[in-house]
Amino acid sequence: MSKGLPKRSEDYSLWYNELVKRADLAENSAVRGCMVIKPYGYSIWEKMQAQLDKMFKETGHQNAYFPLFIPKSYLSKEASHVEGFAKECAVVTHYRLKTSEDGKSVIVDPDAKLEEELIVRPTSETVIWSTYKNWIQSYRDLPLLVNQWANVVRWEMRTRLFLRTAEFLWQEGHTAHAKRSEAIAETEQMLDVYATFAEEFMAMPVIKGIKSANERFAGAEETYCIEAMMQDGKALQAGTSHFLGQNFAKAFDVKFATKEGGLEYVWGTSWGVSTRLMGALVMAHSDDFGLVLPPRLAPIQVVIVPIFRSDEELEAITAKAKEFMAKFRALDISVKFDNRDTHKPGFKFAEYELKGVPLRIGLGPRDIENNTVEIARRDTLTKETVDLNKVDIDTKVKQLLEEIQANIYKKAFDYRTEHTTEVSTWEEFQEVIEKKGGFVSAHWDGTSETEDKIKELTKATIRCIPLDQVEESGHCVLTGKPSSGRVLFAKSY
Amino acid sequence: MSKGLPKRSEDYSLWYNELVKRADLAENSAVRGCMVIKPYGYSIWEKMQAQLDKMFKETGHQNAYFPLFIPKSYLSKEASHVEGFAKECAVVTHYRLKTSEDGKSVIVDPDAKLEEELIVRPTSETVIWSTYKNWIQSYRDLPLLVNQWANVVRWEMRTRLFLRTAEFLWQEGHTAHAKRSEAIAETEQMLDVYATFAEEFMAMPVIKGIKSANERFAGAEETYCIEAMMQDGKALQAGTSHFLGQNFAKAFDVKFATKEGGLEYVWGTSWGVSTRLMGALVMAHSDDFGLVLPPRLAPIQVVIVPIFRSDEELEAITAKAKEFMAKFRALDISVKFDNRDTHKPGFKFAEYELKGVPLRIGLGPRDIENNTVEIARRDTLTKETVDLNKVDIDTKVKQLLEEIQANIYKKAFDYRTEHTTEVSTWEEFQEVIEKKGGFVSAHWDGTSETEDKIKELTKATIRCIPLDQVEESGHCVLTGKPSSGRVLFAKSY
Ligand SMILES: [Zn+2]
Ligand SMILES: [Zn+2]
Repeated sequence: MSKGLPKRSEDYSLWYNELVKRADLAENSAVRGCMVIKPYGYSIWEKMQAQLDKMFKETGHQNAYFPLFIPKSYLSKEASHVEGFAKECAVVTHYRLKTSEDGKSVIVDPDAKLEEELIVRPTSETVIWSTYKNWIQSYRDLPLLVNQWANVVRWEMRTRLFLRTAEFLWQEGHTAHAKRSEAIAETEQMLDVYATFAEEFMAMPVIKGIKSANERFAGAEETYCIEAMMQDGKALQAGTSHFLGQNFAKAFDVKFATKEGGLEYVWGTSWGVSTRLMGALVMAHSDDFGLVLPPRLAPIQVVIVPIFRSDEELEAITAKAKEFMAKFRALDISVKFDNRDTHKPGFKFAEYELKGVPLRIGLGPRDIENNTVEIARRDTLTKETVDLNKVDIDTKVKQLLEEIQANIYKKAFDYRTEHTTEVSTWEEFQEVIEKKGGFVSAHWDGTSETEDKIKELTKATIRCIPLDQVEESGHCVLTGKPSSGRVLFAKSY
Repeated sequence: MSKGLPKRSEDYSLWYNELVKRADLAENSAVRGCMVIKPYGYSIWEKMQAQLDKMFKETGHQNAYFPLFIPKSYLSKEASHVEGFAKECAVVTHYRLKTSEDGKSVIVDPDAKLEEELIVRPTSETVIWSTYKNWIQSYRDLPLLVNQWANVVRWEMRTRLFLRTAEFLWQEGHTAHAKRSEAIAETEQMLDVYATFAEEFMAMPVIKGIKSANERFAGAEETYCIEAMMQDGKALQAGTSHFLGQNFAKAFDVKFATKEGGLEYVWGTSWGVSTRLMGALVMAHSDDFGLVLPPRLAPIQVVIVPIFRSDEELEAITAKAKEFMAKFRALDISVKFDNRDTHKPGFKFAEYELKGVPLRIGLGPRDIENNTVEIARRDTLTKETVDLNKVDIDTKVKQLLEEIQANIYKKAFDYRTEHTTEVSTWEEFQEVIEKKGGFVSAHWDGTSETEDKIKELTKATIRCIPLDQVEESGHCVLTGKPSSGRVLFAKSY
């Protein structure tokens, strides 16, 4: 099954693509740039969604749904927004097809041309703020804390499964506030939610920071982000939270009556994560044998594979497996018993390795006889035989799942620590970016020109100005101009 | 709040539209035919989704996600499918906008024309079966049991919130089977799932049946449906389940190697319900004061409204409310304590009436003193004072919620029974359809011509041939030709 999975060290990019396809996460569709998310991949996305949705609701947000289509003119209402999003988008111009004259195919009906073209949403600020105009009159209507789970489309020329696709799934939070400070607090709160999710559920350490002007969301005053480090030393932006100031309120004329009787523009935020997280999850932990999934997001946490030659053996094993399953389920541990007789145990072992199931329990006749069980860990690829006379199987499995969750986090954290390098000179900068990769912590003079120049020379960009940046006077690694703190550079996805 | 809600008896259609908007379920957007589902409406839809999703998974289905866009040529591959769906659809012809020459707006970039136009999915059979071609090789790959939660677009000319919108949300199941009998069993199983959901969760009785050829899904061999009766005597199709035969397998060349070594076309089904169910839910139960929600789908099952004049009173009431809430939550009863000091109790009462909260608990100083509580039922609009020295509040509330669920089902069931009329003559048929409304059970000669003629004369269509149809020889109500059983006619949404 995993035969021929390319090695990470040989071709990381090919390894990623092949793994996504062979582990049944996703595949390309016949429509350029649009992917099919396969059932196994989708079941991981569902676990992500469920946890994020819970966290959004715990912080007071409600879900809603806004239209897929955006009138073309809406995009132009916020000046910098249109620059960022109008370029690559799917444009609906007609609303009917008709049968061709030869009767063999369908053609676009020229009589069914829309008066104003519709854009398939690349993000929903414009359509949502045009709606908020009607929902917000008074300070009593604020804060308005809304989230949407939806599909969006950005017409990307070069696409990669999960990481950059023309259509992707995401959530987009859009909130409205009476005060600037409240909107900033919301922006920061949601960044924290994303960071907590990434670290505690995806087992993926992230740096919280602020984007430079170059990388800021089109229409935001400030973009906050979480940045993760992949196993090839490239950074991946895993989530963003934008403080929109009053930009969209002004563009769509959304004002509210204050407690004091005034009339003011509303303050806004927006924040989102997408199926891109699936790509991050794969790249952060997986190995040359396949996926390595954090137990808290694994659709199947434990698989039980029977090893048997006769029906009698299978019967005894099945009885034991059922006992295990009842115990696991009582602890909310998801378990699968793979008793297919069409495949041999070795085939199944490789399959669950490829699919990243955290724990595999092999059960053979000798285990039944001795009251033992063999447990294999996906993260370390180690096995141990457990004596069930001494150890509770459910307690043991629960503890192992927690260990795995912690271990893969630590592994990713250590990798990132090793691949974060402080540099002082331009020569060092180039050498580290080129050879070692990872985050490069360096002084920067704060100008877009310097950032552009560095990108041109090295392909590295500023991933963020870390929130925990230490004040430290220094000199820009490229220009030598004064700087008051280090920022993080990296090549990125 | 509910002031001025039109009466059902005066203008049912206006009552519906106003109720949907005032109860914060949905509203029209600036994009013609596309609605905004507001947070309260969406929270009901989420409860529907969660329950349906659970039932789909319990019957062995997995979720996946397929592209929003369908290449135009795909639609033509299944001959009858294109007839049914190509007419009204959103067509993407371009993939880029650019700034206009005067710099003031954006225009479609004529250089960014797609080679082949893309259709925004009106339903996904074509794109899914083109994918299944790669997923299915052998009998071992079958059955394939997949569901998708998605948005779809059908360019409707006359739209109504939830009932008929250009974009709507739905789920579409698409399954593939080795045998005709298995596919039929799946089609019937999913119809049963829908019927169970409608009756046990929506408290809405439904008739299970088969569509006549006129109303069959474009591309199906047989369409099964559930039909519900609204309070104005019109029928509403609440869900459909299609047996596709080998139609899509043939159109997309999906064959599988049989156990016996042959090569055969795969058998298919598809089935779906949509946000239309929200419209059905509103119309089945609500009254002139607002929504009446079945407790099993109500986002808030119990609201506690404090009635107080002083802070001391509010404190004592709050303590009691907290005690109640803890008890309710332990029984999985959702509860809201509305302690806003910006609105008076009377205002709140009307608001929760409008929003269909099944139970309202009023708590005043005298209740605290006497250890009593006043509970108001939304369905009957009755109140009772409960002596907490004698009655457990949580047991009482749980029992009342169950009573309400059963009561509104019974009310809808009785209405339908009263509005189902057997007729023998064409005069009776016309009179009942025109004056009494509801289902008319009548003999029909089985031809599309007769069905068309009846529709032309009365606007009534065959809602279904009930699965529990009794064999009974008779004569077609219009033509007098022989018939072997009655079918159900009605005007419908
Ligand atoms: Zn960053
Ligand atoms: Zn029917």
